[in-house]
Amino acid sequence: MSTSRGGRGMTPFAALHHRPGEPLLLPNAWDHASAAAVAERGFAAIGTTSLGVAAAAGLPDGAAATRGETVRLARRLGRGRFLLSVDIESGFSDDPAEVAELATELAELGVAGINLEDGRADGTLGSVAGHAAKIAAVKAAAPGLFVNARTDTHWAGVADPGPETARRLAAYQEAGADGLFVPSLTDPAEIEALVGWLSVPLNILYSPTGPSLARLAELGVARVSLGSLLYRAALAAAVGTAVAVREGRPGPVADAVPGYAAVTGLHLDGAGG
Amino acid sequence: MSTSRGGRGMTPFAALHHRPGEPLLLPNAWDHASAAAVAERGFAAIGTTSLGVAAAAGLPDGAAATRGETVRLARRLGRGRFLLSVDIESGFSDDPAEVAELATELAELGVAGINLEDGRADGTLGSVAGHAAKIAAVKAAAPGLFVNARTDTHWAGVADPGPETARRLAAYQEAGADGLFVPSLTDPAEIEALVGWLSVPLNILYSPTGPSLARLAELGVARVSLGSLLYRAALAAAVGTAVAVREGRPGPVADAVPGYAAVTGLHLDGAGG
Repeated sequence: MSTSRGGRGMTPFAALHHRPGEPLLLPNAWDHASAAAVAERGFAAIGTTSLGVAAAAGLPDGAAATRGETVRLARRLGRGRFLLSVDIESGFSDDPAEVAELATELAELGVAGINLEDGRADGTLGSVAGHAAKIAAVKAAAPGLFVNARTDTHWAGVADPGPETARRLAAYQEAGADGLFVPSLTDPAEIEALVGWLSVPLNILYSPTGPSLARLAELGVARVSLGSLLYRAALAAAVGTAVAVREGRPGPVADAVPGYAAVTGLHLDGAGG
Repeated sequence: MSTSRGGRGMTPFAALHHRPGEPLLLPNAWDHASAAAVAERGFAAIGTTSLGVAAAAGLPDGAAATRGETVRLARRLGRGRFLLSVDIESGFSDDPAEVAELATELAELGVAGINLEDGRADGTLGSVAGHAAKIAAVKAAAPGLFVNARTDTHWAGVADPGPETARRLAAYQEAGADGLFVPSLTDPAEIEALVGWLSVPLNILYSPTGPSLARLAELGVARVSLGSLLYRAALAAAVGTAVAVREGRPGPVADAVPGYAAVTGLHLDGAGG
């Protein structure tokens, strides 16, 4: 049986996390065309962004409000010409069985991996045991699904997040996580230290003010994701273009805007189904 | 009773089309956040883009495939802090009664106007009488809804589109259209000639290679819409940002990208509901 854990029988998506010095750069899309357009530029795997999904629907992010929208997007993208990882926030439930059920549904839609976070809607962290139980339940139900376990220690206002991060990553790894994700961690020494003792791939959220992709590669990071950056850049371009027309000047991406046919072609060429 | 036709009792959206020398610049959004983010920058009215709706869903544009997605978006945006005009392609039906039913549903969702086009999925033009019948049916069913009747003569490959455009606009105006839209018409003399004899506002699609907003204002254009431009700019920014990270350089809109909180705030401040 194919599994997402390292070693023989590794899934294609898991294998992208096991290329020393060449991290998986995972761009995050929010709809069909953004996924297909990014995939066209040679990205073999695409993630979804919970912020993009929530903001597109006018719903709060990280508040378990977007289960329906998330499954809808997975159905749309799961059979695309790219490997798909879906951000399911904290699984939209505190019940590991319900999270496992969602994971199974996603795997059946062609999804290669999920992100599962321990942050809660109120900004606090869920219990370590509760999150580990979700990870274990998902791995038991859908062993081929790559589970990227995320800890939100750096976003939850933990005073000295280092020890709590380490405690949580160890527990999630033990529970069967295929990868571990610490968003907002950008300190090179701390990243390198984690890579040193973790036995599964480490995922870092790219920040325009943090280490470059090349530097993260040197540090041993296995996966670099873009989170909501592309969705936020898209909004900036839309707003900037509207204001530019009003002010009679070229928009911020005027030289790069695809034509109508290029966008409809994102459907016709079948990338993304 | 409020109507969308010029004169006393005009709707607020119609009134925006009757400000000589100050055309309504209508940016087109494709989801909640893009609408709310653009509205925040002082645009009183927002349109939808059928290309954006179709491409987001991985469906063809202009092929009557996105009725459900279009209503879904209207429901999401219809109660926003802006006036909303919805692109309903050719009404997703050849039956005027069905188009009128859709228009009534949209009006009940808070939609201020619609775009109704005479182009067909196969690239040809529908009959003048058929389109006029749709316009009349919509106006009878939902008199307060601003009907912007679009002719696709310039996109349908008509050899000398001038006379056919004039014939169609006259018929649509006679059928009760509140505004007329000729996408791809950018020639100043032709625009000025149309403004000269039409009795309802003329809408022109902005083109980066055509007349500026200020020039269109001089020509007497009442409404300038951005069509799919913002959605296409958004895709360019997303793709450009992903590639820039891969290549270790700043993205194309790096200086303008909103932070996470600014995007979640698009929900919390209620702009767009």
